[in-house]
Amino acid sequence: MRHRFFVAAEQMVGQEVRFAAAQSHQIRNVLRLRAGDQVRVFDGHRPIDHVVELESADHGRVVGERQQAAEPKTRLVVYPALLQRDKFEPVLQKLTEIGAAAIAPVITARALVREAPDERRLARWRAIMREATEQSGRGVVPELLPVVGFANAIDGATGRVIMAYEGERRRGLHSALVSGSNEVALFVGPEGGYAPDEAEAAVRAGAVLITLGPRILRTETASPLLAALVLHELGDLSSSTE
Amino acid sequence: MRHRFFVAAEQMVGQEVRFAAAQSHQIRNVLRLRAGDQVRVFDGHRPIDHVVELESADHGRVVGERQQAAEPKTRLVVYPALLQRDKFEPVLQKLTEIGAAAIAPVITARALVREAPDERRLARWRAIMREATEQSGRGVVPELLPVVGFANAIDGATGRVIMAYEGERRRGLHSALVSGSNEVALFVGPEGGYAPDEAEAAVRAGAVLITLGPRILRTETASPLLAALVLHELGDLSSSTE
Repeated sequence: MRHRFFVAAEQMVGQEVRFAAAQSHQIRNVLRLRAGDQVRVFDGHRPIDHVVELESADHGRVVGERQQAAEPKTRLVVYPALLQRDKFEPVLQKLTEIGAAAIAPVITARALVREAPDERRLARWRAIMREATEQSGRGVVPELLPVVGFANAIDGATGRVIMAYEGERRRGLHSALVSGSNEVALFVGPEGGYAPDEAEAAVRAGAVLITLGPRILRTETASPLLAALVLHELGDLSSSTE
Repeated sequence: MRHRFFVAAEQMVGQEVRFAAAQSHQIRNVLRLRAGDQVRVFDGHRPIDHVVELESADHGRVVGERQQAAEPKTRLVVYPALLQRDKFEPVLQKLTEIGAAAIAPVITARALVREAPDERRLARWRAIMREATEQSGRGVVPELLPVVGFANAIDGATGRVIMAYEGERRRGLHSALVSGSNEVALFVGPEGGYAPDEAEAAVRAGAVLITLGPRILRTETASPLLAALVLHELGDLSSSTE
């Protein structure tokens, strides 16, 4: 499971797999694999991993199939407030591992980071999410939705909309989730939290405000944790056989 | 709540608080606070915060009291496998925010890091945990237990002992927690997971093995997440009024 690569459809022709330059570099110089060693590849469409025997660091041949890690039944879209780079990149990584279907970075009133990312930054974020997908055993890279302002984000959210809000003292996550929710939108604010008028707008848009309990969590701790709690509550963190 | 300092008993004499040199530096040069501004201090013993009005960056006077963030009813002791520094320090920080009562770093069979930390490293870990306590609103800094090998750790663990194990496919966290567990010991392995004989030793010692679901989580993601799930399941992440 360790060495797993996402490949574009055009990299697979019949049973032959051609690795991209960066993947060949990884195979040759980082993993130090040789002809005859095996890796796994997946294409983001078919729900299986291909077992590939290397013929060189550049190409290999499909010799088998393996199951992928199951995707959550719940479609979880996370709307984390945009944070400074060293805090936001681990959030993208962890939300991907945990099982988010899509991630929509949001510019909020109290955000320290307000400028939308440039194309280079977006490419870096996609690479982080692709690598986390490879590592997690998932077959689907989460969708990176466009960075938008809070008003657009809350208006566009569908399904059960949940917002972690410091001003909410009583309602916990459990009571916010109706059993059978199959689509959840999760909003987690920046370091300074949401502004009261953002919370009001969220409620008007149909969101449920929840507390994360008495202890104050850093926002980069809160968003992966809350994503995991949602999937746990909806049965998506246990095996389906439990 | 933002500016909150842990002070030793000897820093408080009557209503007078004297800040340590590093705290004065923080107050003067980082937070840029002035005489008349307020901060909070707590001493790790009494379950209240003191509101302190600064007279200078070096000292101030208690002018009120505030409630602290509630401690979990559950005593949660986390036994994370020792990891490389850049991965382990965020684990200590997040476990503190979430509400661990104690943290016991463990040297496991497949650990990449095998040498016990020196005194300088331990001091750094304690500082990280103290700062996370200040930030979280908690009144108690979690105990940092001595770094031990796996065999000693599992033998010394008390309460409900739970181990996240890749080889366990079916049992989830929910069924591992008996309601009313008031003491939980949580074992999370290194990058390569626990060795099968470690899992066997854990079961012989009375531990319950659990899966974290079909997707593979990095160990530095798994330990805070599992700590939060334990406290969530036992009602310690919601307000007591829910």
